[in-house]
Amino acid sequence: MSPVNRDRLFRLMDEQGFDAVIAVSPENVHYLSGARIETQISIRDRLALVVWPLQEEPTFLVCNLEEAQARDESWISDVRSYFEFKTSPMELLADTLRERGLLGKRTGLEMKYLSAHDFVALGRLLPSVQFTDCSSLLEHTRMVKSPDEIAHLRRGAVATDRTIRKTFENISVGKTEKQIATELQINLLEAGADIQVFSVLTIGDHGCLTHPAASDRPARPGEIIRTDFGGSFGGFGSDLARTCVVSKPSQRQLDIYRWLWEFHERVIVEMKPGVKVSHLYNFLKKMYEDNGRPFTRPHIGHGLGLVVHEHPMITPYAEQLLEPNMVLCVEPNHLVPGVEKYHVEDTILITDRGPEILSRSADWSRLLIVG
Amino acid sequence: MSPVNRDRLFRLMDEQGFDAVIAVSPENVHYLSGARIETQISIRDRLALVVWPLQEEPTFLVCNLEEAQARDESWISDVRSYFEFKTSPMELLADTLRERGLLGKRTGLEMKYLSAHDFVALGRLLPSVQFTDCSSLLEHTRMVKSPDEIAHLRRGAVATDRTIRKTFENISVGKTEKQIATELQINLLEAGADIQVFSVLTIGDHGCLTHPAASDRPARPGEIIRTDFGGSFGGFGSDLARTCVVSKPSQRQLDIYRWLWEFHERVIVEMKPGVKVSHLYNFLKKMYEDNGRPFTRPHIGHGLGLVVHEHPMITPYAEQLLEPNMVLCVEPNHLVPGVEKYHVEDTILITDRGPEILSRSADWSRLLIVG
Repeated sequence: MSPVNRDRLFRLMDEQGFDAVIAVSPENVHYLSGARIETQISIRDRLALVVWPLQEEPTFLVCNLEEAQARDESWISDVRSYFEFKTSPMELLADTLRERGLLGKRTGLEMKYLSAHDFVALGRLLPSVQFTDCSSLLEHTRMVKSPDEIAHLRRGAVATDRTIRKTFENISVGKTEKQIATELQINLLEAGADIQVFSVLTIGDHGCLTHPAASDRPARPGEIIRTDFGGSFGGFGSDLARTCVVSKPSQRQLDIYRWLWEFHERVIVEMKPGVKVSHLYNFLKKMYEDNGRPFTRPHIGHGLGLVVHEHPMITPYAEQLLEPNMVLCVEPNHLVPGVEKYHVEDTILITDRGPEILSRSADWSRLLIVG
Repeated sequence: MSPVNRDRLFRLMDEQGFDAVIAVSPENVHYLSGARIETQISIRDRLALVVWPLQEEPTFLVCNLEEAQARDESWISDVRSYFEFKTSPMELLADTLRERGLLGKRTGLEMKYLSAHDFVALGRLLPSVQFTDCSSLLEHTRMVKSPDEIAHLRRGAVATDRTIRKTFENISVGKTEKQIATELQINLLEAGADIQVFSVLTIGDHGCLTHPAASDRPARPGEIIRTDFGGSFGGFGSDLARTCVVSKPSQRQLDIYRWLWEFHERVIVEMKPGVKVSHLYNFLKKMYEDNGRPFTRPHIGHGLGLVVHEHPMITPYAEQLLEPNMVLCVEPNHLVPGVEKYHVEDTILITDRGPEILSRSADWSRLLIVG
């Protein structure tokens, strides 16, 4: 894990009037501390937090069971711990804020992650303190990636694309969604993922649901198979969608895939520094509408980093401008109601020279025929 | 997914004075609705909720992208959706509470999961409504398992034990933590897991940290290897810890494992209906202390179900009595500071006839020698 972008953090804190910020989510605690406390995800009550006063050094708060690991992995020297079930993390947080002289200060709290239960408990411990949500500030800090972070994202994108290609090319008639999904998962681990995080693998009309679990449905000739799939590489997410067809595509299927891919490529060309993110949404929407195709999606992509959906989401409301070293996924799709769904998604690095596609290990410009 | 235990839910609501409960977490929404909306986990902002008034039918609230799946998988007929980024889930929740006549009622809210951000937004939408935390009620509802749920937990426990045994028996000198961890993950998927969820695999002194990520450290003769590992089977968790030694154990290592295993077995014998959960903690603690061994653990096990740590946690504060059809993990360990850590964990079903160990596919009573 590369060190946090301290200059960017302090600049945003200064601009938004924060004297200190408190990070609570696994991704922000990982980002700010450099330590990856796995139980933050698998055991949700076992909170880890980073308290960071402007222009000062941070304090890292963890469960006593994770203290040795926090000291081992984090560059933060001020590590403090609570004894689980005896002392609550909110008591330790209140003590820390008091001890670091932050009670009268303008303190940001990651309210999009901290639970209402803990928020109410903290309010009882510190009734005179007003906290302001700093979730967005932390998301903006993480939005522009370092060379190390980009290296992880690039490795994950290529490995995930290779994994999907390899698994698709191994599909034969009669294989079930579950069998193909398991191959995807295993191939991703063999390709170097820390862990496989989420997986959609559907055949035919089952693909009309957005994220169903894989079933025992077998692949039949002429059916569309799609995946939306990713894992974690060095803590950073991968997320790609690909579509193929079993043995005998119809002309209709080939045509749909061709225009979908063309729209996809055209949106990617627009991904240059200075472009407003909502433009990408509107640009794709207009292509659909100009071609008489329905378009009802809430977003068409998202930032990618320590979590799968990061700021900025590519929505009609996204005022954010693209900047060099942002990494985003863009993902058009097309639903034929009751029949099948097509979905393509790539991971794009924004550079001074324009978009760089990180996720192509093979040519996907024509509908891949398998089995 | 077997249907929710409606009688138990309504009895607890009645006893605790709730007119309605609102579930928000992935596990409780899955439990109450029967639908498993994967993006509740991978895309945290995309909330799904169940609103359930006492003695009435529930309402299921989801993102529009997940509506088709919710209708497909859930038995709940009243499904309503919000359009992501345009309408917030809290607006839909407020409208639903109003429309179902719940505004003046005693309404429980799962405050241990709902974010402070959403809680504050809900309070602005419904300033006159007082919500009470019903997280504990929902945990208690899920605590006693149905035959179907026990079947999933049993399948996961046995498959996970077999996976660990097979992977351990394949260890050779020079294999790294990462290589062994990857084999564990792949073997668990091949054994039928939906997904591999968490994994600790450490060699020698790296095991002194509680949950570090697997490293490039190679196995050497005489080193202790431990894992704490699990996945999801039909949505239900598995969680086991096992310890082995590479090629040449010392007498000291054999001795430590022998008493640790004996303590483990003795605690399991105590797991009978009517026993207070804190007794298990105190019973193990006393064995350590009577033998002059340090004991500083916050818990020695936990309920297991849709998530890895469920009610009841086996702590000195646990007033809960064991009941038939509860499923718990018990996990003693022993740290030799700076040298190595031993960890064993099994999954126990509480029955009228006493404890039934679900997780033994092989004999682990003596320290397994590998490589």
